[in-house]
Amino acid sequence: IQSKLPKVGTTIFTVMSQMAAESNAINLSQGFPDFPVSEKLIDLVYQNMQIGHNQYAPMPGLPQLREAIANKIKNTGGVNINIDTEITVSAGATEAIFSSVLATVNQGDEVIVLEPAYDCYIPAIELAGGKVVPVGLSLPNFTPDWQKVKDNITKKTRMIIINFPHNPSGAILTQDDITALKELLEENPQLIILSDEVYEHIIFDGNTHLSVLKDKFLARRSIAVSSFGKTFHATGWKIGYMVAPEAIMKEIRKVHQYNCFSVHTPSQYAMAEYLQNEKNYLGLSAMYEKKREFFQQAMQDSKFKIIPSYGTYFQVLDFSEISDMGDMEFAQYLIKDKGVASIPVSAFYSDKQDDKLLRFCFAKGEETLQKAADILCKI
Amino acid sequence: IQSKLPKVGTTIFTVMSQMAAESNAINLSQGFPDFPVSEKLIDLVYQNMQIGHNQYAPMPGLPQLREAIANKIKNTGGVNINIDTEITVSAGATEAIFSSVLATVNQGDEVIVLEPAYDCYIPAIELAGGKVVPVGLSLPNFTPDWQKVKDNITKKTRMIIINFPHNPSGAILTQDDITALKELLEENPQLIILSDEVYEHIIFDGNTHLSVLKDKFLARRSIAVSSFGKTFHATGWKIGYMVAPEAIMKEIRKVHQYNCFSVHTPSQYAMAEYLQNEKNYLGLSAMYEKKREFFQQAMQDSKFKIIPSYGTYFQVLDFSEISDMGDMEFAQYLIKDKGVASIPVSAFYSDKQDDKLLRFCFAKGEETLQKAADILCKI
Ligand SMILES: CSCCC(=O)C(=O)O
Ligand SMILES: CSCCC(=O)C(=O)O
Repeated sequence: IQSKLPKVGTTIFTVMSQMAAESNAINLSQGFPDFPVSEKLIDLVYQNMQIGHNQYAPMPGLPQLREAIANKIKNTGGVNINIDTEITVSAGATEAIFSSVLATVNQGDEVIVLEPAYDCYIPAIELAGGKVVPVGLSLPNFTPDWQKVKDNITKKTRMIIINFPHNPSGAILTQDDITALKELLEENPQLIILSDEVYEHIIFDGNTHLSVLKDKFLARRSIAVSSFGKTFHATGWKIGYMVAPEAIMKEIRKVHQYNCFSVHTPSQYAMAEYLQNEKNYLGLSAMYEKKREFFQQAMQDSKFKIIPSYGTYFQVLDFSEISDMGDMEFAQYLIKDKGVASIPVSAFYSDKQDDKLLRFCFAKGEETLQKAADILCKI
Repeated sequence: IQSKLPKVGTTIFTVMSQMAAESNAINLSQGFPDFPVSEKLIDLVYQNMQIGHNQYAPMPGLPQLREAIANKIKNTGGVNINIDTEITVSAGATEAIFSSVLATVNQGDEVIVLEPAYDCYIPAIELAGGKVVPVGLSLPNFTPDWQKVKDNITKKTRMIIINFPHNPSGAILTQDDITALKELLEENPQLIILSDEVYEHIIFDGNTHLSVLKDKFLARRSIAVSSFGKTFHATGWKIGYMVAPEAIMKEIRKVHQYNCFSVHTPSQYAMAEYLQNEKNYLGLSAMYEKKREFFQQAMQDSKFKIIPSYGTYFQVLDFSEISDMGDMEFAQYLIKDKGVASIPVSAFYSDKQDDKLLRFCFAKGEETLQKAADILCKI
């Protein structure tokens, strides 16, 4: 059998989580919270199953959930969204990204990916027949270099994929970034943005998330993707959504309708109601900022260098003063010999660029974070 | 924006269900049951959410669910399946089909589709870069004509998609069909089968479902797809699975892992337990056979001609003695003027071949079926 994705192996998240399980290590690798989903939200799902909301939801998602999403966007400073034509509920952000890329990237189109990059973008582009053009974020703080992006744009560049708050680094966009991005779009009418904003509600130090949906011009040229798994601590429920202008959404829905058709009905009813209370998503930044503080504090006396994390539930640590190993080798050593699992940042680069950085997930209870930090501080 | 799927509109199921809602018609169009999911299964999902089974499931599915699926296959006369390498849980059968086609059909490959065909096959083939080769089933009983299939096979034919029990017609495979299919595979070593078996547990008149997984040779050359939504009356939960030989499954998982990554975790735990009791799927045929009998009985005095339905929860009716209208026009008339919604069978043909047939879903309570039949008998 001829592989359509010859370079693809098992995702790094699965690999590291499995290794963690085998070594009984504290698992700060794959990103998922270890605290519970709200009882209220669980009860809402249960009630809706009992009522009999168990058959196909409408293909674009339940109207009341799309309405609640539009309100959330509006409440957080975004543009007005037409729920009939501009929002689709997806089987998680991953499906939203996959369907979006498949629908909009044509054979031979070039797609710029800012690296380090979450691992699902490139296979989607390749399956769509597109050409991946990786452009590195600037170290040490993972800031976008828009001049470098510009230098890589050709007539064939169809899309730029951005992801802020940024996985793995926690970098965020500034107003200057938004200005630069808009300039690029103005200069290149064929270009659209795919903005993976799954950590939109996890942003620290009083900063505001600069969603593409907060700017009228950008919103008209972007597909924005988000995730209820991240926002409601339910990564295993696999519900997300995408927002795009009507002409683009029309094409995305053609793919979505033959990819998944629709998404878990009782959860959609539950989330539509749960979203009515703003507190259920606006409190997230404060909660995770406390965890970031706690973990950084606990790591204060270690030989790891702390890279600033401005959002997400990830902390990148630089181990260059500790070891000469490659980051994958060092990550394996940490799991097997020390009992703490992380993700080597090289896994997020298509050329496996290795800057001796590891990503740790701090969406965990303080006891777990303390235990991990105690181990890491002794290294 | 240049469409990747220029021929695709909104699915016929959405179109007809919407029309039914607008006209307040009895909706026998889109296929979904109107009776409840088992309380036991709902409670299991609830318990698993409460326990905290809410984060990412493993990418190929929960091991205990894969084990339960392998046991179900074995219990119903199928081959031994390696759960580590040959089963993947999917976001419904639709995602299983989409990911399978994307993973195995290369640019320029030909794929034979037996028509009338469920509507998700062709867009998946087109997105994969494949060429659709439609081959009609023989009327009036929708039997496969293997000679015609053979005549359409070329060196480039990569896959044949089959779907028995057959949607929309309810046709099933005979042992002779299996023999003919095996011959085709023997003669064409490049060929594999994608077997959509979502109605595997709904088969009538004492017949046995002839799954590709019941034959060692076929199983080695096939991807078999099934659906818990159909089997457990929960079409909105979007959980299915696919089974394939390791080399093929390896490629399918590469796509699946970047398409959805994983599937609703609490439902997977629940289904793993619920599947332990064979009765939870073995009773399905008897239950639906009663409904088929009820509906056919109620239609006895109508001018519609009843086409035999040997499985699925669909009944095709021939209206050629009633009207000269096209089937889409007649279906619209039935909804708007008479208050009963169905699906025109022409929607399942790429050339819209119109044999004056409508498909009715009988996965409904007897009262609903009686009401619909009363109306239809007066036409
Ligand atoms: C789908 S598993 C990966 C989870 C995640 O978002 C991450 O660890 O970055
Ligand atoms: C995904 S909506 C279509 C449901 C179905 O299987 C059918 O009606 O044939």
